[in-house]
Amino acid sequence: MLGLMMDRALTLPSILEYAAQYHPDRQVVDRMVEGPIHRYGYADALARTKRMANALAAMGVKPGDRVATLAWSTHRHFELYFAVTGVGAVLHTINPRLHPDQVVWVANHAEDAFLFFDNSFAGLVAELKDRLPRVKALVAMTDREHLPPEAPADALVYEELIVGQPADFAWPDLDERQASGLCYTSGTTGNPKGVLYSHRSTVLHAMALALPDAFDFSARSVVMPCAQMYHANAWCTPYAAPLVGATLVLPGRALDGASIAELIRAEGVTFLLGVPTIWVGVADHLDQTGERLASVKTIAVGGSAPTAALVQRIEDRLGGQVRQIWGMTETSPLGVINTPLPQHDGEDEAATLSRKLKQGRGLWGVDLRIVGEDGEELPRDGKSTGALQVRGPWTVGAYFKQDGSEVFTADGWFDTGDIATLDAEGYLRLTDRAKDVIKSGGEWISTLDLEDAICSHPAVAMAAAIGVPHPKWDERPLLLVTLRPGHSADPEALKAHVAARVAKWWTPDEVRIIEALPIGPTGKVLKRELRDQLATAAPVQPAES
Amino acid sequence: MLGLMMDRALTLPSILEYAAQYHPDRQVVDRMVEGPIHRYGYADALARTKRMANALAAMGVKPGDRVATLAWSTHRHFELYFAVTGVGAVLHTINPRLHPDQVVWVANHAEDAFLFFDNSFAGLVAELKDRLPRVKALVAMTDREHLPPEAPADALVYEELIVGQPADFAWPDLDERQASGLCYTSGTTGNPKGVLYSHRSTVLHAMALALPDAFDFSARSVVMPCAQMYHANAWCTPYAAPLVGATLVLPGRALDGASIAELIRAEGVTFLLGVPTIWVGVADHLDQTGERLASVKTIAVGGSAPTAALVQRIEDRLGGQVRQIWGMTETSPLGVINTPLPQHDGEDEAATLSRKLKQGRGLWGVDLRIVGEDGEELPRDGKSTGALQVRGPWTVGAYFKQDGSEVFTADGWFDTGDIATLDAEGYLRLTDRAKDVIKSGGEWISTLDLEDAICSHPAVAMAAAIGVPHPKWDERPLLLVTLRPGHSADPEALKAHVAARVAKWWTPDEVRIIEALPIGPTGKVLKRELRDQLATAAPVQPAES
Repeated sequence: MLGLMMDRALTLPSILEYAAQYHPDRQVVDRMVEGPIHRYGYADALARTKRMANALAAMGVKPGDRVATLAWSTHRHFELYFAVTGVGAVLHTINPRLHPDQVVWVANHAEDAFLFFDNSFAGLVAELKDRLPRVKALVAMTDREHLPPEAPADALVYEELIVGQPADFAWPDLDERQASGLCYTSGTTGNPKGVLYSHRSTVLHAMALALPDAFDFSARSVVMPCAQMYHANAWCTPYAAPLVGATLVLPGRALDGASIAELIRAEGVTFLLGVPTIWVGVADHLDQTGERLASVKTIAVGGSAPTAALVQRIEDRLGGQVRQIWGMTETSPLGVINTPLPQHDGEDEAATLSRKLKQGRGLWGVDLRIVGEDGEELPRDGKSTGALQVRGPWTVGAYFKQDGSEVFTADGWFDTGDIATLDAEGYLRLTDRAKDVIKSGGEWISTLDLEDAICSHPAVAMAAAIGVPHPKWDERPLLLVTLRPGHSADPEALKAHVAARVAKWWTPDEVRIIEALPIGPTGKVLKRELRDQLATAAPVQPAES
Repeated sequence: MLGLMMDRALTLPSILEYAAQYHPDRQVVDRMVEGPIHRYGYADALARTKRMANALAAMGVKPGDRVATLAWSTHRHFELYFAVTGVGAVLHTINPRLHPDQVVWVANHAEDAFLFFDNSFAGLVAELKDRLPRVKALVAMTDREHLPPEAPADALVYEELIVGQPADFAWPDLDERQASGLCYTSGTTGNPKGVLYSHRSTVLHAMALALPDAFDFSARSVVMPCAQMYHANAWCTPYAAPLVGATLVLPGRALDGASIAELIRAEGVTFLLGVPTIWVGVADHLDQTGERLASVKTIAVGGSAPTAALVQRIEDRLGGQVRQIWGMTETSPLGVINTPLPQHDGEDEAATLSRKLKQGRGLWGVDLRIVGEDGEELPRDGKSTGALQVRGPWTVGAYFKQDGSEVFTADGWFDTGDIATLDAEGYLRLTDRAKDVIKSGGEWISTLDLEDAICSHPAVAMAAAIGVPHPKWDERPLLLVTLRPGHSADPEALKAHVAARVAKWWTPDEVRIIEALPIGPTGKVLKRELRDQLATAAPVQPAES
């Protein structure tokens, strides 16, 4: 027997319609690629979005068409988030930090039919356009005055497209399982793989994101995502903010410390999110200026795990509380979040910090399990280490064109490629990426623990632990570090620093100071590249053991 | 093109599974019908729920079967909320305050196959059972020791049913559109009509309910619904609380001021909800004892509109902030809620109070409109008064067995039967129930405004404005009032009190002091009964106009 409640589809345009009606003057603020700060209310945002929806229809965009963007976090990108999905097409947010060959590869793999681009990428698009035979139209996300000379001659201009269009548009009836967005994983192993979001998965994820123990979004929140809108929909905040009428601040392309600090101060930002390196930049800037920020309540940190020292520095310099999250493009991205429970009130500082270094706890809608090498589920004891698998209505069920099907288990779970523990309180703690794991003498050594140990040393800026081949132990850890500006350190002292903090057999055989670590397009260290570079080097000497 | 995220159904058992795994020790506390306070964690609640699911299967409960309850707000009722729905059956929560003939009518209309009942209703069930031919089994929600002698001899006993059952149960794969609950409207006009909730509508509603600008539920919340679990699922709190790991306090049958105040104090309740009369009782009790409560943050008030005086009294006596909500069985029930917006900070006391007397603003997922008598949508100007219509994924789409189809519009909206205004800020303000409206000289007079005006008089306890026939104006208002204990008042003085507060032509021709107002099973004044009583009385004298 089926229930008799209204069968209303969960669709993305309904979110902006709601915001425009109930929060017409609440602001969307962005730093435009052209430079100035732009601001408007949700009512105006909806009107422009509908003009763009009409323009898309006039351009011949059809339901299911992939409409690509090479763009930063701006109000025009925000409009495309709703206009493209609202007409039933699929917004493919290409990561412009990919190598140009990879941009071509993903655009062709996605069969992108239209391409919108920011001025920053006008030259790139001109260079690549002949390699994108399926693209029917290019649109520069600017006005005529600011169109860069290097843009393709046949590029249309965003503001010209919408200026003559009506500000009303009847959204088509959409199946909530209709694809809404396409985002490729960074592809540090193999080709990038496409995650095809649906209206349903995105709406449910946005609702879950706004809950008090997740991002706690309300009409009082001022939300600034410092993950770009090509990174898993800026963690879905451009959908979750209007769903509750929160103010949305989009930082454009400028993620340097000074630019971010300026927006936080000017807009009274309460909620920030981004990878750890962003906050290092902001903290450095605040160190230089001596400025204090008063408005920040929560800094959600994800993408990679911050060290204890960094958590303390971020909280000290930016104000507010750090909440780690763990997630992936494949999980929309919210998987877990580290929100304190009532029983943590009154715990001592060391316990608080130790808790904050875990990635967080699951929310309703995200089932988690860890499994051993033979596929059996492992206990939630905080010790058993295994492959992290996820299941839920905003978790990927298959990659676009069925790529990479080996990561989907027969019983319906997604294997994340992360190695982790779960504890009795429900906390997830990542110990490694499966592909980065070091296996020494048949046992795993956590590269994240080694990196965390060395980063507590005041001279160390960044670190990467990798496994190098070893004749007796199969692999042994090598720890590569960069130093903070103006600091020096002795490798043996660094090694001793680690040795004091981890199991004896985990201690790396060598700590090597290098100039810089290779960083990939999503801000993560490219360990594969490090391993490749070192593959030709002589094996390190065995540790005494 | 369909998205490729996991196609996981939104189902109710997943909520309790989540709570048991991530909040195993967070408490569900109830005042048992047998007297004592009972408490357990969500993990134990799930274990008992699964025992009951096994028991239901053993009893022959099949998917789609209606399983009825005549029960208060207790942990056993909470278990049935998940066990019955989890096995794919439909939980029919009968309002035991209905007249026994109506209990029989709804049980037979629903075709209830099983009936669970609290000890309070053992005699009633024994009396009615022969009139319920479809019911295959009766279950007393108690243990053998407490089984009342008046219970039917063939009644099964809840604790005996589950004691031998395993605490594990594999929930069947459910379609999220599967019916989960059935709740009949109070039926003040015509026969009661059944609202058939689905897993999907209930899960979505629970998520929306927990959002910061709605009920703001988190693992830190201590939630006590003082609407019984047969009133629109106690406003869905037994589902929303475990979805976020909030503590749930169920008051059993005792909704008197002393019992509620005791639970608030003992459990540190932060969130209360219920109809205005409940809070009058608590305030009266606190007046008598001089006690102060420290934990309450929010008192959600719905069911009928509180007066300004009552809002002030509740906030003064209970602590916390009153938030009106408006909703119906047909809207799961959350329609609107009166949560202050950032722009209301710093407003003066009079503005705050005036705002609090509106029912509230819409949330995402609840589309609202008001339409005139010819069906056209009216402006949101705070003045235009029309029929309130609602649409959304947790709004009723049709009544059970297609009763009352006239309230569903051709373009897919539900006509609530309420008369209201919407203002530019999005606030809904009810002015009447359509069936209670007074039309005088072709214009509507708001009975709620009249009642609000008279209730600001210190001697007045309750009021009901009704229309009485009039030869010239078709109808004129008559205001019936009851006085607070120990107070007296002159009817002409009361009339003058109203006249000073409303339009001249709205002033009732008579204010009549009576002993008591007839109250229906959902706590609302039965105006139809008042009108029927007065139909034989002489017409009141025309006002000078």
